Amino acid sequence: MDVHHGMTGITADQLKQAHDADLAIQGEEQVTFEQAWADPDSGLVYCLSEAPDADAVQRIHQRAGHPADEIHPVPLTI
Amino acid sequence: MDVHHGMTGITADQLKQAHDADLAIQGEEQVTFEQAWADPDSGLVYCLSEAPDADAVQRIHQRAGHPADEIHPVPLTI
Repeated sequence: MDVHHGMTGITADQLKQAHDADLAIQGEEQVTFEQAWADPDSGLVYCLSEAPDADAVQRIHQRAGHPADEIHPVPLTI
Repeated sequence: MDVHHGMTGITADQLKQAHDADLAIQGEEQVTFEQAWADPDSGLVYCLSEAPDADAVQRIHQRAGHPADEIHPVPLTI
């Protein structure tokens, strides 16, 4: 799970564009972005992915132009 | 999306117990907890739910014994 800060006012179109930019190159790092959720009021965006490690996620996000502010492996899920 | 802090060392069993405690009473507030992800190292737990509002989510989490530290509506998803 990674978190982006400061995305206040993000629109559905902007979220889709950012997500599509990740999807376009994610295979180069064996990352699969599964879902993203955004709160335009607080400017927080959460992205869930399957990935070899946090660094691979960050490399994709950086190359797509939106580095994450936090990345937390979430080995437990229910 | 709500976030719990300080859950360092949480186990799969503890995550399931906490989630089950939410599920047992969620209907009383028209909340549906969909999924939860935990990082035992950082102690962060993320919960995704459908709910009338953030207060309804917090009432369920409080009654279940684990109030959230942050609750962010995520009207945008992809």
